[in-house]
Amino acid sequence: MRMVDVIEKKRNGLALSTEEIQFFIDGYTDGSIPDYQVSALTMAIFFQGMTEKERADLTMAMVKSGDQIDLSAIEGVKVDKHSTGGVGDTTTLVLGPLVAALGVPVAKMSGRGLGHTGGTIDKLEAVQGFHVEIDNEEFIHLVNQNKIAIIGQSGNLTPADKKLYSLRDVTATVDSIPLIASSIMSKKIAAGADAIVLDVKTGAGAFMKTLDDSRELAKAMVNIGNNVGRRTMAVISDMSQPLGFAIGNALEVKEAIDTMKGEGPKDLTELCLTLGSHMVYLAGKAESLEDARSKLEEVIRNGTALETFKVFLASQGGDASVVDQPEKLPQAKYQFELEAKAAGYVSEIVADEVGTAAMLLGAGRATKESVIDLAVGLVLKKKIGDKVEKGESLLTIYSNSEEVNQVKEKLYESIKITSGYVAPPILVHEEITE
Amino acid sequence: MRMVDVIEKKRNGLALSTEEIQFFIDGYTDGSIPDYQVSALTMAIFFQGMTEKERADLTMAMVKSGDQIDLSAIEGVKVDKHSTGGVGDTTTLVLGPLVAALGVPVAKMSGRGLGHTGGTIDKLEAVQGFHVEIDNEEFIHLVNQNKIAIIGQSGNLTPADKKLYSLRDVTATVDSIPLIASSIMSKKIAAGADAIVLDVKTGAGAFMKTLDDSRELAKAMVNIGNNVGRRTMAVISDMSQPLGFAIGNALEVKEAIDTMKGEGPKDLTELCLTLGSHMVYLAGKAESLEDARSKLEEVIRNGTALETFKVFLASQGGDASVVDQPEKLPQAKYQFELEAKAAGYVSEIVADEVGTAAMLLGAGRATKESVIDLAVGLVLKKKIGDKVEKGESLLTIYSNSEEVNQVKEKLYESIKITSGYVAPPILVHEEITE
Repeated sequence: MRMVDVIEKKRNGLALSTEEIQFFIDGYTDGSIPDYQVSALTMAIFFQGMTEKERADLTMAMVKSGDQIDLSAIEGVKVDKHSTGGVGDTTTLVLGPLVAALGVPVAKMSGRGLGHTGGTIDKLEAVQGFHVEIDNEEFIHLVNQNKIAIIGQSGNLTPADKKLYSLRDVTATVDSIPLIASSIMSKKIAAGADAIVLDVKTGAGAFMKTLDDSRELAKAMVNIGNNVGRRTMAVISDMSQPLGFAIGNALEVKEAIDTMKGEGPKDLTELCLTLGSHMVYLAGKAESLEDARSKLEEVIRNGTALETFKVFLASQGGDASVVDQPEKLPQAKYQFELEAKAAGYVSEIVADEVGTAAMLLGAGRATKESVIDLAVGLVLKKKIGDKVEKGESLLTIYSNSEEVNQVKEKLYESIKITSGYVAPPILVHEEITE
Repeated sequence: MRMVDVIEKKRNGLALSTEEIQFFIDGYTDGSIPDYQVSALTMAIFFQGMTEKERADLTMAMVKSGDQIDLSAIEGVKVDKHSTGGVGDTTTLVLGPLVAALGVPVAKMSGRGLGHTGGTIDKLEAVQGFHVEIDNEEFIHLVNQNKIAIIGQSGNLTPADKKLYSLRDVTATVDSIPLIASSIMSKKIAAGADAIVLDVKTGAGAFMKTLDDSRELAKAMVNIGNNVGRRTMAVISDMSQPLGFAIGNALEVKEAIDTMKGEGPKDLTELCLTLGSHMVYLAGKAESLEDARSKLEEVIRNGTALETFKVFLASQGGDASVVDQPEKLPQAKYQFELEAKAAGYVSEIVADEVGTAAMLLGAGRATKESVIDLAVGLVLKKKIGDKVEKGESLLTIYSNSEEVNQVKEKLYESIKITSGYVAPPILVHEEITE
């Protein structure tokens, strides 16, 4: 087989065979196929697309390019959740204890990475003593015992995907639905998921700006999952404004606790119930999505979710008393209010820009070397559609520096107020179950 | 400027600026832009095409990437002819003396290369003593004195094109009209041509199999030439069967001499008159294409063309007596006739396959290391549309080996005879003058 023929076949709009895709991924992983042939192929894929079968083949070829996590020692259906990324997305922190309380095993492998705030591990480290330095045996034991544990990313997972992603990044071939979908799905599958719930964000603050693109990506991923034997569902949710109120590490832990108590922001709560229903249903712990939702509402009401969270924190060395005394979480030295310059209705909160403001305060990493300040961030007081008086606070800035003029300026630019009424955006646009 | 942005711009169907094309060619030539970005760009060009302005910019950027031959010391308009390549194409050998006889300066730089037969230099070396090892000064002196000389390729011409072509060859991006057209034109312009006549072949034996593709390529090249200040014309000519009768080095020299005497194959003669008319007209040596043609017919009739050829051979050390005694050219030991297996009309002579048969005899190079046998080859006795009796000879095989069964088998497969009448193919499909 010659790579040039594989490229030409795709360029001419034909579907590649399982063997051809395996040949290309194997060759790229072992270095026998050079970057310049792979970038020509990815550009051809950008224009010609891939069939459902090709996408499944590509995903599994990338899964097999490296280590695969074996979670078979964990009882039950391991359901993983993946979000395409947004600002103030505290769902992972809430969902874990919520579904674990219903007996769904949550075996979370997570990283740190770059972004407006830290990753899930960074956020949880706002709880004193909490750590993820546990070995695999301990990890599996904890999941079996408590139904929830989190471990840092290790092993050589999907090296083909890593190599391919770096190449796509410098050859203008990132924006290809088949390539994005197989990249995400390969990572989830290699990490051992039996079933997958996807939260595909849509809107100005999301990778996919339009509902059409988000739907196409969601369907592509659901198809891949189901075609390779992993039951997969997707929710398309709004990211035109940040989710919930808090953006920042300790601030989001506090918000997650509030939400598990039934006192969280309405949108965050609703999205957690929606995503959680899919997780519980896929894990076989409910008869239907409706049944799953009422069970989740029950574990919030009766305190089991919160209790599960406490056990989880304690089992990995964390001080579980923060749940009842959130003031024990890292606190920023200063608080500033961002006062509305005019009365009216909030019409726009550009999620990306608000996230960048949080990062300027120190909540996230711009480079791998950046050190995160767990205490700082923003808490919104108004969201799109809310009425506001002149001088009323739009949000609170939590900072360890007295000087926040640059941050304020950025925030004023990203929040728009209009005189006429504005409807709040739809939170859950679609649920894709097959 | 970042190459990834240039790729994305083209991928999105926008036209690149002069500066962006210069940036990409400069960076690729000096190695600062890697192969993998360039192959992504060429694949994007395959799908999105290039505007007339982009094609001209790309051509000139490649011209400027290396040396440019300075022919300004030669008097008159230097007209170069380029053929996209075919089988048995003896036009270059005939055209040089023909137009030189009318005072058009022919300053030919040529190579050897791979193919069914040798290049122009190989063919001319069938004349004893002929050589191209002359220096630039001598070359220019000879052209000014005799209006015709030939020199081997030297200098670092269009390195960007060489690099780009090698890359396209292994990334399935050869078949792109803008890239093919700018590649050909950059080489001609760097070699110093003031004006260019293109012979774009069409049909089964050509690079472009259909008339539509050939026309598109011809127009693309004519546009580039005229947009960068080189008057350019193109002829689209048939290559569904070999041109003329002879395929082989010494055999083609003999055929060229016959043609200069006015005794050559009808199709070869006609194509030489057509291409030659364009050359003479572009060089300003005739009032019109019709005027040019009658002048060319005159130099054949009155022997000036043949005389010019003799002077040319002698001036570069060749034994000019071969013109009157062609038996002095290298002769093959054996001749075999290919007898028709049935009576009827010749309906197909697959040019490519017949060329490969000639190469099997030793007439061409399969690899750079192959040694050419100048004596061997084929001479067709029948062409498409000709009536043939069973047992009559279709062609003569000139071989230095007694064993030609494999060659005969290949030839029988490539020549078809049908019972019903078949019309000969049209020789000159179109002439594109602007």
